Amino acid sequence: MLDYNPVTGQKGQCVIAGRGAVAIYLALKNISQYGKCVIVPANICYAAVFPIIYAGYTPLFCDVNPADGNVSLRIIKDSYNDSVAAAIIPHMYGNPVSDMCAIKSFFLQKGVKLIEDCASLMTNRSGSYRPGTVGDYVIYSTGYSKTVDIGIGGLLFSVSADLEDAEKEERSLNPYQECIGDEWRIFSKIYRTIRNNGQNSLIVKGIYKSFEKNLKDLLIYSINDKYKNDILNNISRLDEIIVLRENKYNLYLEHLKDSDCGYSIYKFEDGAVPWRFNMLVREETNRAFIEYCLRYGLPVSDWYPCVTPIFGIYDSFDDAMWHENHIVNFPLLIPDEEIIRICRVIKGYKEKK
Amino acid sequence: MLDYNPVTGQKGQCVIAGRGAVAIYLALKNISQYGKCVIVPANICYAAVFPIIYAGYTPLFCDVNPADGNVSLRIIKDSYNDSVAAAIIPHMYGNPVSDMCAIKSFFLQKGVKLIEDCASLMTNRSGSYRPGTVGDYVIYSTGYSKTVDIGIGGLLFSVSADLEDAEKEERSLNPYQECIGDEWRIFSKIYRTIRNNGQNSLIVKGIYKSFEKNLKDLLIYSINDKYKNDILNNISRLDEIIVLRENKYNLYLEHLKDSDCGYSIYKFEDGAVPWRFNMLVREETNRAFIEYCLRYGLPVSDWYPCVTPIFGIYDSFDDAMWHENHIVNFPLLIPDEEIIRICRVIKGYKEKK
Repeated sequence: MLDYNPVTGQKGQCVIAGRGAVAIYLALKNISQYGKCVIVPANICYAAVFPIIYAGYTPLFCDVNPADGNVSLRIIKDSYNDSVAAAIIPHMYGNPVSDMCAIKSFFLQKGVKLIEDCASLMTNRSGSYRPGTVGDYVIYSTGYSKTVDIGIGGLLFSVSADLEDAEKEERSLNPYQECIGDEWRIFSKIYRTIRNNGQNSLIVKGIYKSFEKNLKDLLIYSINDKYKNDILNNISRLDEIIVLRENKYNLYLEHLKDSDCGYSIYKFEDGAVPWRFNMLVREETNRAFIEYCLRYGLPVSDWYPCVTPIFGIYDSFDDAMWHENHIVNFPLLIPDEEIIRICRVIKGYKEKK
Repeated sequence: MLDYNPVTGQKGQCVIAGRGAVAIYLALKNISQYGKCVIVPANICYAAVFPIIYAGYTPLFCDVNPADGNVSLRIIKDSYNDSVAAAIIPHMYGNPVSDMCAIKSFFLQKGVKLIEDCASLMTNRSGSYRPGTVGDYVIYSTGYSKTVDIGIGGLLFSVSADLEDAEKEERSLNPYQECIGDEWRIFSKIYRTIRNNGQNSLIVKGIYKSFEKNLKDLLIYSINDKYKNDILNNISRLDEIIVLRENKYNLYLEHLKDSDCGYSIYKFEDGAVPWRFNMLVREETNRAFIEYCLRYGLPVSDWYPCVTPIFGIYDSFDDAMWHENHIVNFPLLIPDEEIIRICRVIKGYKEKK
């Protein structure tokens, strides 16, 4: 166990884990208010929701700001009730939640534990506050597509909680196996097929139930010391990775600057570390735009969608759905020429309309 | 209830049902030896296997002849044991099972009920015997892609059994609803995704289990009299449909006749009604050939695969797998020009090699 946060340098206890989901699982076990609810935004990654169930809690989904996909204090207040023991608040897309400190104060009053989800925002810098220093628990990820991406790994950090048992629990989990990667590849393909064809059928509802039963060992696992050292070594390169991400992001901005309308560029707050280059494309043309990009072989994605149907919740989260129907993303850590090509193709779509 | 088989004209009892699967379900209920096993070939349509489970039996899969995908007496003898109460023997691809009469004699000795599955072979003609007159029970389908295709419907016929209760049971099932078609469309897409990406993962095993739980109402339903009349009206057009199928099949043969090797043309027995135009393409080039066909927009399919993994059975059925790895099919009931185009594209692949 480390006695500091390797990302921010802050003093406290830190457990290195197999992925962000494991860190969440360990935090919720540490909170040990089983049977209670955990607030999560409707558009959080599904991998952050399953650990709530596996740790013995019930997810309570809340809506998000349509434009940036982050929660606000108002949304949190609307969702809160007495059954809530904890909340997982992600900085979506590497964009710091503006109200994080106010949310923390609200939760402090209510006795709710805040798990600050820095899976997409690993940073040692400050904006209007310092991400990774606000939550009672802070979790990070070094998994696929995260700020520092080594395909595996996560951290659980806390200034106030004793994580000794959490560390023991981590060591007691089933060990990570290579085949887990294959399982997630097939999962992604099936989930993509479902997302492209609608989630309201009996067939899909049955499949979603099967996920809850079968994903535990694929999400909650231990890793050996070699992996743990690897994670720390890579986090030590954080500064240069953030600079690289900013440069790549600015390259997109520069090459798209004289194109107008049809979409808007996602706005990052002060202190953000861009995850991908995000655009909000008008709902009416969003699918057509993505298909156009795919025809040109662009590595386009449309994360993060509303994940509540996976968990049997078909309530409408209007703003999370608005966000889902607009958001489009392109990778940052690719060669400059590929970014320039992507921008050229994007501008081509604009002109065609 | 009809007092004759509307396909062959033979005297007996005949119940009109929602699909072939319902007819199988009703036959097995009529046999009422719950808890026993039912022999089925490993490559039968999955829709014929679920009713075995839903009726309270266990499927016992057997292998098939690699070349034509049909079972033989030898295979049936190898698979038989004391737990077997019934067998569903399909005429695959509209190709009559050569050993059907010998299989019937064997089952008669053993007290096993033969369900002759004419889902893909609706015919009033004879080859070396008369299909649809051998089984203790005979089932037909008028569903998607069947000899007579009206998208819905099936028949259960028997000379010897009393089907009065079966008819009552049919009327007591949940009624067919339009949304069932949507469910099967999403099912097909997911099953296709799984087939293209491997069936050995935990994720897929979990999904397959969910199917067993969730498909019952999508497979076993009642239909109203309007549908039943429609089914009979369409069966009355059987003669002309068989002639049409033969003509279309011969058009394929004619336009492929001067192309050689790389594949062989599936051989139909005397008395067959071609289902699709089938080819056996060498395993090493099978995938590449299908991808080539898809690139040219051909309506290529690769039915029927080994379905045992859907039912949690990962035993190897070597000959059914050989067949799965070779079989490729093209539709018959399409315009002549489209058939000619398909043949031209197929020959183009040959020449490229």
